[in-house]
Amino acid sequence: MENLVSNEVSILTDAPSAINSLLVNNATMKALVYHGPGKKAWEGKPKPLIQETTDAIVKILKTTICGTDLHIMKGDLPEVTAGRILGHEGVGIIEEVGSSVSNFKKGDHVIISCITSCGKCEYCKKGMYSHCEKGGWILGYMIDGTQAEYVRIPYADNSLYPIPEGSDEEALVMLSDILPTGFECGVLNGQVKPGDTIAIVGAGPVGMAALLTAQFYTPAEIIVIDQDDNRLEVAKTFGATHTINSSTNNAIEKIMALTNGKGVDTAIEAVGVPATFELCEAIIAAGGHIANIGVHGKSVTLHLETLWSRNISITTRLVDTVTTPMLLKTVQSKKIQPKKLITHRFKLDQMIEAYDTFGNAAKEKALKVILEK
Amino acid sequence: MENLVSNEVSILTDAPSAINSLLVNNATMKALVYHGPGKKAWEGKPKPLIQETTDAIVKILKTTICGTDLHIMKGDLPEVTAGRILGHEGVGIIEEVGSSVSNFKKGDHVIISCITSCGKCEYCKKGMYSHCEKGGWILGYMIDGTQAEYVRIPYADNSLYPIPEGSDEEALVMLSDILPTGFECGVLNGQVKPGDTIAIVGAGPVGMAALLTAQFYTPAEIIVIDQDDNRLEVAKTFGATHTINSSTNNAIEKIMALTNGKGVDTAIEAVGVPATFELCEAIIAAGGHIANIGVHGKSVTLHLETLWSRNISITTRLVDTVTTPMLLKTVQSKKIQPKKLITHRFKLDQMIEAYDTFGNAAKEKALKVILEK
Amino acid sequence: MENLVSNEVSILTDAPSAINSLLVNNATMKALVYHGPGKKAWEGKPKPLIQETTDAIVKILKTTICGTDLHIMKGDLPEVTAGRILGHEGVGIIEEVGSSVSNFKKGDHVIISCITSCGKCEYCKKGMYSHCEKGGWILGYMIDGTQAEYVRIPYADNSLYPIPEGSDEEALVMLSDILPTGFECGVLNGQVKPGDTIAIVGAGPVGMAALLTAQFYTPAEIIVIDQDDNRLEVAKTFGATHTINSSTNNAIEKIMALTNGKGVDTAIEAVGVPATFELCEAIIAAGGHIANIGVHGKSVTLHLETLWSRNISITTRLVDTVTTPMLLKTVQSKKIQPKKLITHRFKLDQMIEAYDTFGNAAKEKALKVILEK
Amino acid sequence: MENLVSNEVSILTDAPSAINSLLVNNATMKALVYHGPGKKAWEGKPKPLIQETTDAIVKILKTTICGTDLHIMKGDLPEVTAGRILGHEGVGIIEEVGSSVSNFKKGDHVIISCITSCGKCEYCKKGMYSHCEKGGWILGYMIDGTQAEYVRIPYADNSLYPIPEGSDEEALVMLSDILPTGFECGVLNGQVKPGDTIAIVGAGPVGMAALLTAQFYTPAEIIVIDQDDNRLEVAKTFGATHTINSSTNNAIEKIMALTNGKGVDTAIEAVGVPATFELCEAIIAAGGHIANIGVHGKSVTLHLETLWSRNISITTRLVDTVTTPMLLKTVQSKKIQPKKLITHRFKLDQMIEAYDTFGNAAKEKALKVILEK
Repeated sequence: MENLVSNEVSILTDAPSAINSLLVNNATMKALVYHGPGKKAWEGKPKPLIQETTDAIVKILKTTICGTDLHIMKGDLPEVTAGRILGHEGVGIIEEVGSSVSNFKKGDHVIISCITSCGKCEYCKKGMYSHCEKGGWILGYMIDGTQAEYVRIPYADNSLYPIPEGSDEEALVMLSDILPTGFECGVLNGQVKPGDTIAIVGAGPVGMAALLTAQFYTPAEIIVIDQDDNRLEVAKTFGATHTINSSTNNAIEKIMALTNGKGVDTAIEAVGVPATFELCEAIIAAGGHIANIGVHGKSVTLHLETLWSRNISITTRLVDTVTTPMLLKTVQSKKIQPKKLITHRFKLDQMIEAYDTFGNAAKEKALKVILEK
Repeated sequence: MENLVSNEVSILTDAPSAINSLLVNNATMKALVYHGPGKKAWEGKPKPLIQETTDAIVKILKTTICGTDLHIMKGDLPEVTAGRILGHEGVGIIEEVGSSVSNFKKGDHVIISCITSCGKCEYCKKGMYSHCEKGGWILGYMIDGTQAEYVRIPYADNSLYPIPEGSDEEALVMLSDILPTGFECGVLNGQVKPGDTIAIVGAGPVGMAALLTAQFYTPAEIIVIDQDDNRLEVAKTFGATHTINSSTNNAIEKIMALTNGKGVDTAIEAVGVPATFELCEAIIAAGGHIANIGVHGKSVTLHLETLWSRNISITTRLVDTVTTPMLLKTVQSKKIQPKKLITHRFKLDQMIEAYDTFGNAAKEKALKVILEK
Repeated sequence: MENLVSNEVSILTDAPSAINSLLVNNATMKALVYHGPGKKAWEGKPKPLIQETTDAIVKILKTTICGTDLHIMKGDLPEVTAGRILGHEGVGIIEEVGSSVSNFKKGDHVIISCITSCGKCEYCKKGMYSHCEKGGWILGYMIDGTQAEYVRIPYADNSLYPIPEGSDEEALVMLSDILPTGFECGVLNGQVKPGDTIAIVGAGPVGMAALLTAQFYTPAEIIVIDQDDNRLEVAKTFGATHTINSSTNNAIEKIMALTNGKGVDTAIEAVGVPATFELCEAIIAAGGHIANIGVHGKSVTLHLETLWSRNISITTRLVDTVTTPMLLKTVQSKKIQPKKLITHRFKLDQMIEAYDTFGNAAKEKALKVILEK
Repeated sequence: MENLVSNEVSILTDAPSAINSLLVNNATMKALVYHGPGKKAWEGKPKPLIQETTDAIVKILKTTICGTDLHIMKGDLPEVTAGRILGHEGVGIIEEVGSSVSNFKKGDHVIISCITSCGKCEYCKKGMYSHCEKGGWILGYMIDGTQAEYVRIPYADNSLYPIPEGSDEEALVMLSDILPTGFECGVLNGQVKPGDTIAIVGAGPVGMAALLTAQFYTPAEIIVIDQDDNRLEVAKTFGATHTINSSTNNAIEKIMALTNGKGVDTAIEAVGVPATFELCEAIIAAGGHIANIGVHGKSVTLHLETLWSRNISITTRLVDTVTTPMLLKTVQSKKIQPKKLITHRFKLDQMIEAYDTFGNAAKEKALKVILEK
């Protein structure tokens, strides 16, 4: 579809300078291209062009790989077509902007949000950017993404965020997706409050992001549950007050013992399988909140026969990235160190190697990998 | 247990007048007594006595029967022991108060809340009276209830509400349970807002209470779904803008058509079976709220494989009756006519007949029955 | 400034059709033009042209006059320059859209919001459109307005609202400013709840809008205070439960008597002078909310020596019109009849006559006047 | 009034053991007694007796002096009568409980709340304990207080909080008044959020309590303003990111410079004079919150002529101590160190000396003084 558009506009050779950028571009770049389940390559692709007046072209400085990219590679998201450049996270420099873009100009450093927001549909006006009628999660999914030297960002004014001078840009890559996901879906939906006892089920990158951002609200106790002792050790250094390896312990019993039989005020599900969601159901206190972050492929059993009278809430959410400006302020003021999430660093053209490392996260003790120019 | 207490205090024959009420009382009264599954009688029982300084004895003026009473009669709540007087709703006159009761005195007219609140445990302080450590729902369940000439109300200061002079007391019986249940569990948890489109699944008494109280927040459209055409007709007169008989129609298709494929902002489940809860899952809009009121006996299937990304909330709640003062103001100012819910009237000693009528609600076109002195 | 822009773009005579609208336009139209304090004329002006790709040109079908227009005419807002076309309310038909506008096309019927929102600045993203870095209230103030045959609307996608087919467009003129102002600044900020007792101080158009929209939340009592008996009579027909003429009564005493000495839960100030604000301070209950709508020209005395311990909130707000979609749904579903606010109707070219009528509101018993094509 | 009650009950010499405590008590204790403006003594007083079944007698382990006590000593609160024992803060051991008290028993260690809550009036049910119809702030004001060896606490179940075993009780004295005051009136009312820029005007004990508890919500910048360099130095060690001495600097200019001319998201007034409140008005950002904590003796000028359009809130509150359980959890989990507020320690019978020190707070560099048994 994108090539089609590029061809179409190539006839506008006499257009005034404002739309010069719509000319065919023979420049190429390197990118991570999906070629169907199990097949990928770091290969040449045409450098992206401005297609709409609201677009920006961003030169990637740093990007990363998400668990969702691994799912795409496995073929779990069949709607992703062969030829697609993957990746929906990163920071970069504005290379060019469409004529309607007013928040950014060439040379600005920006955070790329994983969610594209048009800023003018019903959902965007409500702050539900994830359900934007023209955007939402499309980067590296429905349109080409950020695991490349350049990327086209639609609705740039509403989908990019300016990086203050002097920032640690590596840390800010975590603001593209993982920090707002843990924060919005887990911490905000979970209504974490000072003094609360909370449980985070799953200590992968997004669970860790929930762990870091939950501390914005000063819970008294944070119990992290996982099956990987290494990740639990890391969780302790990130602020967990208790950790439980659920493969070698009865997590429900342990949590109920820790909470005097009351259960936790907030349970954050950061895995996405029935067993972990049902664990949350079992440990939630009366009046508590189960906040789902996990991407689920199957239905789960909801035990309404006990929960109907427990005054609980269960929430789901696809990240809206509406809190990115707030998160940026907390990073700038050093209230949070998202850099802690980065375990491995590569050059951009080591992309395949980085995928291998991230694909063996447990063995490699990987959380987030950074690929930089 | 209650008899035990009465015996124990009978020895205090020389106690000063403040505890005179603890004397054995040979007075009797008539009451609806549960004698095990399927067995009940309107029979003589000792008139209740003050047991704690925080108790009140209330002479019943009007009471009613709840669907839960029918469940008890079927044996669905085996924790209810034979000999128990049923009933957890009603209005009455204060007959006597314990020495610590300060909000009420003999002769005051009161609404009896279905929820007993001690006012001083952790849950009561948070407004979660339903989980009161010493109260909650105990009336006509763990202790003797209101389907009787007299009832003992523990923690009277926090569990009774004064009736303003000149009130229509019949209407106020609806404040004991059904109106706060529909309002708190359905309308408040469902976050109904002006202009919303909402669905109420189940047009029994509690669904009707949700229908009446939802209108406090001026939703644009209220779709009521049931399998009983009579109840749907009544729902229209109560303010439903659309009704759907789900036994003869594909409710999901109809609702999606009515909402341009978006679904409803709030879906209120007022039945308590898997099919109706899953209907709510199918019709909820992105960003919407499923508010469960139904008492569920089985687990349900939660379709997280689609709902994980829909930004929804699901809530459960046992009514707290914390909104009773608010609801009383709306009744007094004639903003709501709860009397509409009353379809049949009996004398108190027609209790068995009233149970028969209410037990055949569909055939008798019954919503709420009133039994009066 | 606008002429300058028009001249500048006139040289683009070879531009492709997408920017044809930027040509100089010799067409003229009639408009209400401000010529300095006390001077106005209904006279010829150039028809507005698209200046930015985000603009729309709207042909006015119906407009109205606001109290603020009278203030401008008096010279109270010296920043308004001579030559300005006044007016910031109206409905119309899209005549032309800039190339970036995607929500609207020629022929669409639209509500014009009094607030211009760019949709992409920090404030717009927070829903504080009133403080939009490029918009806010500029129509008929900093740029030409709606009391004309045509108007240019910047950021049309975020500043216009589509009118559903078959609507009563006269009623919808009330959505440009007055209804969202009464609702957002008065009712939402005032946190009106079911069962509340509220006071509205000032029964002019915006107080009446607060009166109508307060009923979305079903307060028990609505006390309206004004010095004009006619307006108080109208307030009764709009839903006021009590009215007080403060020129012939001690309003404070009356309100305290009506509320058993407690005061009101919410006091909405809809006048804008010290006396009415201080009345609100005197009648607010402990725990209550004073919501200011009035445009104040002077400071007021805040009695913190009594209010510091009263657990109250005081709020101010310039309308954001962020609730326009919600309000539109309530109008479409006939939950509110804003048409009630319209007392007089004129043809567009009777503008001067309409100003005369509206300028003598008390004598003419005028609330809102409609001017239609 | 209390003596009267004691005399009255002295005739009940034959009462059963449950009311034995109502006997006349000839035991005496030492207490700080107010004898009119400027006069106080540490002298003998009768040990308090249980008067109501809901009372508890608490043996004081640690108490402190509040700025309000100094105001009483100056005669600023003429409603305080000569003979009154002052003090409304402290921790102690339950010596005796009335027959209705069920949350506590002899020997329990407790925090005494400065606010007495009956738990059953309209205000208590809403969590507005400060306005309790029978309580509120009465300790050391309307009834005898905590600067004594023993104190009678009315409504003990709702006005005392249990101290977990092994706690640092000195730190918990700060939970009687100062921490909930800073937190509820300043931080909660001020709606402090992650990433916010906030200002705290006044670095006395309550401003410091706001400073400590504001950090529960992780603001990015905390600007503290005072006229005492020592207190500003202390504020820095407590977490202030910027401090301004307003006696030697133009605070408004400095704050506007620090915030790029936008002002602060939240301004907390912790002094109680017109100048500091008006400073808050001058530095508040559009959309911001002014949270008043200060006890004001005079009215202030509210600049509605500029603030009317700024979308701000102003709040007042007498502390409700409804957050005491939450605060206790944060202290127990070491998320906050209220002990930092304690600068001086005395024995209980050094009360006069402690008053002298606290009365010269600036010179003595005093924040809170502790008096212990």
